[in-house]
Amino acid sequence: VSASVVDRRSLEYLDRVASELYSSVLSDILDDLGHRQQVIRPEVRAVYPGARLAGRAATMLSVAVSELPAEPYKLLMELLDSIEPGEVVVAAVQGSTQAAVWGELLSTHTRARGGRGVVIDGLTRDAWGIAEMKFPVFATGVSPADSKGRLEVIAIRQPILVGGVAVTPGDLALADEDGVVVVPQAIEEEVINRAFEKVAGENTIRDILARGASIKQVFEEHGIL
Amino acid sequence: VSASVVDRRSLEYLDRVASELYSSVLSDILDDLGHRQQVIRPEVRAVYPGARLAGRAATMLSVAVSELPAEPYKLLMELLDSIEPGEVVVAAVQGSTQAAVWGELLSTHTRARGGRGVVIDGLTRDAWGIAEMKFPVFATGVSPADSKGRLEVIAIRQPILVGGVAVTPGDLALADEDGVVVVPQAIEEEVINRAFEKVAGENTIRDILARGASIKQVFEEHGIL
Amino acid sequence: VSASVVDRRSLEYLDRVASELYSSVLSDILDDLGHRQQVIRPEVRAVYPGARLAGRAATMLSVAVSELPAEPYKLLMELLDSIEPGEVVVAAVQGSTQAAVWGELLSTHTRARGGRGVVIDGLTRDAWGIAEMKFPVFATGVSPADSKGRLEVIAIRQPILVGGVAVTPGDLALADEDGVVVVPQAIEEEVINRAFEKVAGENTIRDILARGASIKQVFEEHGIL
Amino acid sequence: VSASVVDRRSLEYLDRVASELYSSVLSDILDDLGHRQQVIRPEVRAVYPGARLAGRAATMLSVAVSELPAEPYKLLMELLDSIEPGEVVVAAVQGSTQAAVWGELLSTHTRARGGRGVVIDGLTRDAWGIAEMKFPVFATGVSPADSKGRLEVIAIRQPILVGGVAVTPGDLALADEDGVVVVPQAIEEEVINRAFEKVAGENTIRDILARGASIKQVFEEHGIL
Amino acid sequence: VSASVVDRRSLEYLDRVASELYSSVLSDILDDLGHRQQVIRPEVRAVYPGARLAGRAATMLSVAVSELPAEPYKLLMELLDSIEPGEVVVAAVQGSTQAAVWGELLSTHTRARGGRGVVIDGLTRDAWGIAEMKFPVFATGVSPADSKGRLEVIAIRQPILVGGVAVTPGDLALADEDGVVVVPQAIEEEVINRAFEKVAGENTIRDILARGASIKQVFEEHGIL
Amino acid sequence: VSASVVDRRSLEYLDRVASELYSSVLSDILDDLGHRQQVIRPEVRAVYPGARLAGRAATMLSVAVSELPAEPYKLLMELLDSIEPGEVVVAAVQGSTQAAVWGELLSTHTRARGGRGVVIDGLTRDAWGIAEMKFPVFATGVSPADSKGRLEVIAIRQPILVGGVAVTPGDLALADEDGVVVVPQAIEEEVINRAFEKVAGENTIRDILARGASIKQVFEEHGIL
Repeated sequence: VSASVVDRRSLEYLDRVASELYSSVLSDILDDLGHRQQVIRPEVRAVYPGARLAGRAATMLSVAVSELPAEPYKLLMELLDSIEPGEVVVAAVQGSTQAAVWGELLSTHTRARGGRGVVIDGLTRDAWGIAEMKFPVFATGVSPADSKGRLEVIAIRQPILVGGVAVTPGDLALADEDGVVVVPQAIEEEVINRAFEKVAGENTIRDILARGASIKQVFEEHGIL
Repeated sequence: VSASVVDRRSLEYLDRVASELYSSVLSDILDDLGHRQQVIRPEVRAVYPGARLAGRAATMLSVAVSELPAEPYKLLMELLDSIEPGEVVVAAVQGSTQAAVWGELLSTHTRARGGRGVVIDGLTRDAWGIAEMKFPVFATGVSPADSKGRLEVIAIRQPILVGGVAVTPGDLALADEDGVVVVPQAIEEEVINRAFEKVAGENTIRDILARGASIKQVFEEHGIL
Repeated sequence: VSASVVDRRSLEYLDRVASELYSSVLSDILDDLGHRQQVIRPEVRAVYPGARLAGRAATMLSVAVSELPAEPYKLLMELLDSIEPGEVVVAAVQGSTQAAVWGELLSTHTRARGGRGVVIDGLTRDAWGIAEMKFPVFATGVSPADSKGRLEVIAIRQPILVGGVAVTPGDLALADEDGVVVVPQAIEEEVINRAFEKVAGENTIRDILARGASIKQVFEEHGIL
Repeated sequence: VSASVVDRRSLEYLDRVASELYSSVLSDILDDLGHRQQVIRPEVRAVYPGARLAGRAATMLSVAVSELPAEPYKLLMELLDSIEPGEVVVAAVQGSTQAAVWGELLSTHTRARGGRGVVIDGLTRDAWGIAEMKFPVFATGVSPADSKGRLEVIAIRQPILVGGVAVTPGDLALADEDGVVVVPQAIEEEVINRAFEKVAGENTIRDILARGASIKQVFEEHGIL
Repeated sequence: VSASVVDRRSLEYLDRVASELYSSVLSDILDDLGHRQQVIRPEVRAVYPGARLAGRAATMLSVAVSELPAEPYKLLMELLDSIEPGEVVVAAVQGSTQAAVWGELLSTHTRARGGRGVVIDGLTRDAWGIAEMKFPVFATGVSPADSKGRLEVIAIRQPILVGGVAVTPGDLALADEDGVVVVPQAIEEEVINRAFEKVAGENTIRDILARGASIKQVFEEHGIL
Repeated sequence: VSASVVDRRSLEYLDRVASELYSSVLSDILDDLGHRQQVIRPEVRAVYPGARLAGRAATMLSVAVSELPAEPYKLLMELLDSIEPGEVVVAAVQGSTQAAVWGELLSTHTRARGGRGVVIDGLTRDAWGIAEMKFPVFATGVSPADSKGRLEVIAIRQPILVGGVAVTPGDLALADEDGVVVVPQAIEEEVINRAFEKVAGENTIRDILARGASIKQVFEEHGIL
């Protein structure tokens, strides 16, 4: 069954993408199509070994602040209470390491609402709890310091720039141990279809190379490396 | 049994802090009390998964050198031979990555003397041995290069600045997978008592959120996020 | 049996070095001999826990490019098809984080040819597959982005500078969880012989320290720390 | 005439502060009063030699964007058309070096409205024109790239964090070749009065030291260094 | 006289570009045409105040080395002896700060051959001599250390990546106190013609703004800021 | 008159070195003699254009602190009151940018005692006053923030590591617009003599190249570039 017969709005589709595809094959296809800025900077990594996710971006943008806002967490909570099944929270903090913008309680809530995970170009906390509940969080690091009075969400569900990549709400994010790739919606169908094909090809080549073949010959014959 | 009835000078007290509290809850309480600079910079992380410690800071300060000192390791050994049960070695190297200031042999010695672990704003070595003996070391990274002729301890058991935090000998350090928090002695009793209370509250909220509650309502009712 | 009676060109010799020695002891011996710039910068780390390798450097040098070369991967494939048993690919990308220069397929090929692993002062990809096949790769990080049109190999089997260390083809590289050490061939025999001796001494000292001995006395008597 | 008899809301007052005081003396007084986080990070420097300013902060906050907003420059223009005589534009871009948020045309407009200069924790452009018109701009560097579609102002006349310092609209900013100091309004009168006194003291000491006096004696007698 | 009637291969054309246009106006036009990656990173700056140049890129690529090459300076000298009037040496060292790749003697030679200046994403030396002879060099900084045995040129007159920008031999480089812009040859005519028009428009607007006009009205009427 | 007939302990000798030699020629000679780590990292630069100095290193080492020491400035003042004519203060702060360790009053005192200038791998303040009195200070930048309670001198007149270079008290430091070079005393005579010779050679070559000679021929004939 090719991916194109699966409803791209379904959760089954996201499940297949998460379990059968991976970030490097998506990046290769995006490169081939001329979209060469779709990989989030490599400092954004899986918080625990084996974390992986696929879902639609629910974006939020935070800025550094120096005092408690009038209504702390206001937009953050608004976003989280609106999470739909299949969504992934994608958070831009512009590289700030002042505080963690995510943690175990938010993970618990987001999972309960059907959210698939989180991508942050900054820090999370509760790394242990997050690993234990296997909720896939991708971040540049961890810190015990809370965001309250340090970082405040100022926009939700808007186009943002995360780790060097432009993300529009609804874009497909796929993250695994190699990092995070964002697929723009306009080319998603083509990218995903090609990716399923390329995965099959790579499996063949892996077997050939494992038997000691010349890498030059393999590349000339199959065009994959 | 509240923490305040436990003798804060006892090892049992440190055991309870290490096993029941965690760095993020201490950071939150310190924030509430207006002590907002008590989290060591996030590059200082657990050397192996699951490392955690609580103990009293035994401080040392190193500087970069370019030649072998007359008596190598002199103050380092003086500090280590004076380690008391319940202490944690807290080492400032001012971010230098020239060499590792810690390793497996020092860990073996420190554990034999009752030391609880190590916090360094620099590198350690023997990561494999340290992980195997489960001696909690927190550092910015690892390197095979020894400190001899590269970094030399120039002061011990003095107030120092470690990863952006002022540490006075005897301060309580708690470190886990999220990072390292330092609790000044003058407010330790209040911080620890409040922390035990907050942990209980967080457990309640986690259960509520796991059932799909609105995060806005939960925050309004419990004031915790 | 001392190491000097083993043929240094044999694979058995490399096996012994990989299983019985470690990076920190080699670094100490090199320091003692006045070779104090042989440790690759600490950002180059094991891609999965427990990775370790010993082998002879097969070097390659990449530079950042902005367009697809006429013959992509040309020199990379030439190097890989020439890998001899016991060799380690040592790749200089001069710290670039634009793309990954290594991955699972190249690992599969290199292992099939008898290669022992890879050291890169840049990124790899397919971290999961590499961990699963236990092929020791040491890198500064991971990224899904392929090197094609981003980094191109421009020289192979030449002297290069990798993470601050001069590496000549055929030099012995040893890497483990502490990092990567390079042993110049001219002093290899002396370094390795001394290292086997020092490992024995460290085991003795570890036992003494574990029983609570004074670290000052131990250092005065044995001269090791 | 002491500064306290001058109306702090007058332009004459700002003129005296700009011509008779300097950033280091303000920083010292703020230190003495326990306000030790009032110096903007040292990367923010005068764009041309001799630039100096004193004025009241008119703040703006920009974030990195990846596409042209519906109404480019909207809030930026709103702030600039509201500039009052004696104000200084203080712009937070959170360290972004993607583009310049200031230039010669904005300088021309701001000077025409009575603005005293600009402080940015990011880049400006038109460095030559700015130097020629002697409009004091303090920035981390320069770039020809415009902010359009790269950085967008999202808040004006709000409290912001600029180069590590909390700035509230109306705070007094003083900048010269040493850098930028921000004086909170609540303590401004005391800071400025003390600063005028200290400047007089420093002039005396400079004369004494120029004659070859012992610096230890001078410090013991005058308490200034 | 519009620029398009001037022979783009003539030196007069380069003189006009250098004296009448500037980097920010070229960057704006390139942005408008969708070429948004043509500004070299802002660390590359004029070595002395007032430096400016326009010319055709003669590219060279250096890599870090650790020993003296067999024929030091070989390709560097080959490039310099082939410099044609109107050319600018554009040197990629991939950000290395190990050594200076340029200096006063090379400047003297290049000027004698009709070269217009130098752009390096690394260091130069002889800053004083270069400033005195007013030979426009743009670099990230200075160092007394020579490139011999530290950096070696490995390719000349090839496409390279300099400070984040793809540069093809013959591309037009314009540099001034704001930084360096590279204009691809395929669009050069359109960019330069539009730039001459925009410069005229900016002069008009500067006069209007200097008289205190609303910046919002000016932008609405003229579309320039 | 060759330098070797001048008394190296005399001030006249330092005057000649400062006025006739420069940092790049010293660096070249040191390279030739195999001393390739004698250039302080390039971030340490002249505070005002044209600054240059030659003198003997009077070293001090500072560390970051978090509270006011019992006797602020104690060792700093001890060093400054002991400055001899011809000495240069060489200060290691290990790259800290928390505060300025130098300023105009210290410059005034040091000049009065015959000191020749200052080299810091950190910040100074009073940049304007220092430029006006033409006292050569080399630093990584400027800040209004004083060192009191931020950085404290902990050792004076000891061997230190400054910007990557080992400096022993009495070593010859020469600094100009290209940066700072340190000449170890044991090889000083040879270095200085060779440098005077090389300067003469460079003047000849400059004239030849200015007339348009082939750089390859000049290098082959004279061996200088």
